[in-house]
Amino acid sequence: MSFLNLLDKACDNNNSLLCVGLDIDLSKLPQNVRSEEEGIFEFNRNIIDLTRDYVCAYKPNIAFYEMYGIAGMKALIKTIEYIPEDIPVIMDAKRGDIGHTAKAYAKSVFEVFNADAVTVNPYLGYDSLEPFIDYKDKGIFVLCLTSNKGSSDFQTASGEEIPLYRHVAEHVNEWNTFGNCGLVVGATNSEMLKEIRIVAGDMPILIPGVGAQGGDLESSVKFGTTKNKNRAIINSSRGIIYAEDPGAEAKRLRDEINRYR
Amino acid sequence: MSFLNLLDKACDNNNSLLCVGLDIDLSKLPQNVRSEEEGIFEFNRNIIDLTRDYVCAYKPNIAFYEMYGIAGMKALIKTIEYIPEDIPVIMDAKRGDIGHTAKAYAKSVFEVFNADAVTVNPYLGYDSLEPFIDYKDKGIFVLCLTSNKGSSDFQTASGEEIPLYRHVAEHVNEWNTFGNCGLVVGATNSEMLKEIRIVAGDMPILIPGVGAQGGDLESSVKFGTTKNKNRAIINSSRGIIYAEDPGAEAKRLRDEINRYR
Repeated sequence: MSFLNLLDKACDNNNSLLCVGLDIDLSKLPQNVRSEEEGIFEFNRNIIDLTRDYVCAYKPNIAFYEMYGIAGMKALIKTIEYIPEDIPVIMDAKRGDIGHTAKAYAKSVFEVFNADAVTVNPYLGYDSLEPFIDYKDKGIFVLCLTSNKGSSDFQTASGEEIPLYRHVAEHVNEWNTFGNCGLVVGATNSEMLKEIRIVAGDMPILIPGVGAQGGDLESSVKFGTTKNKNRAIINSSRGIIYAEDPGAEAKRLRDEINRYR
Repeated sequence: MSFLNLLDKACDNNNSLLCVGLDIDLSKLPQNVRSEEEGIFEFNRNIIDLTRDYVCAYKPNIAFYEMYGIAGMKALIKTIEYIPEDIPVIMDAKRGDIGHTAKAYAKSVFEVFNADAVTVNPYLGYDSLEPFIDYKDKGIFVLCLTSNKGSSDFQTASGEEIPLYRHVAEHVNEWNTFGNCGLVVGATNSEMLKEIRIVAGDMPILIPGVGAQGGDLESSVKFGTTKNKNRAIINSSRGIIYAEDPGAEAKRLRDEINRYR
């Protein structure tokens, strides 16, 4: 099944545009575990058990696992294995390299970690993304506009006729010949999100930044979705996984998102 | 000791601007080993033993290790431990993410893998690089102009008053308040390398692309170095590590580079 079908089905099954970001932090993990590996995995297993009926995707960011070395990488592999097959896993890796190296990263993400989709960085251009796109049944989310302050350094830099983020959106739309590409657009600039959705057509847009980063939820849903009110993947990480009751918070956020659809 | 001191000393000790890229490939590794982990490490150990008198740095690209999962990551850690302390290790990781995630990547590269320097991607702007730069004794090489075809998609895209790669070079020069930043500039465009060296002042420039990718060695050395004829780090990966005699090839390439200094 293609990534897009998997995503659409998960959205329908759980009536949800919510993606939960599995960005673990050892200082907040259970203390009574035998090892870091077990601690990380048990934490994630609990989150997945509590939230699996309310999400359209999970998004582990590999940085938080790599930070714990071998134990973290093992826990990440176990976590992805544990996620139900009908919920897609978007590996947030923001990879970008050339030639053989891009191929190695694609192999790692899709064959070692078995993710269903990945985030990638466009700076090195088409041939750096091609080895990922060649996995036709996987999803490739290209960074377009991020939610941080530094997005103004290059992505939205003034003085250019067409800003970089728009160039990226237009190029990815052209490169999407297999229908497996998407964009990453932070929730913090709703006008630009609106503009990008027009360029992106029916491509899925992964939208981080609604919780801790202060993005507006209503406009993210309104401007991020397609005419069919889907294909926006609204991510929340810390807001859910460190909530007192992650299941209740996931349900609440899913329902709030649905009110704006 | 700061990265720049470590680099300058290694350049002096071995009279070399040559960096060897440790981009392993299992299909070319020794067959009579007990495990992938051992195979990768033994391959690298042999390369390091043969080339350590001819290099100013080693550059493992993490993609080629991640591709082999846990075994690859373990072999990478062992490889970095094995590299002599007076030769800097540049982890080619091309990382780029925001906030907590950028911090996690920096911690991974500098504290888990114990690299002396890292390559990073500028797309997300200053705050995505800051957690790396905050490690004042480590080297931070920011992607500026790459040697692949796709570099024309965004980095050198025409139609803009100032191309993106130049914006990046100028910004990194401003951001280099701790003196620990550098740039990555592919060897395939010598005119642009010349222009970037002027912007970069005395910053080190990591120059991949001279071997398999067809960059011109003479102009890379001539235009990539400073007035003191150093601070250019000329990388060769497959050209050396898969040579029949990697030591002889490293010595030959080091000496050829020195003829152009």
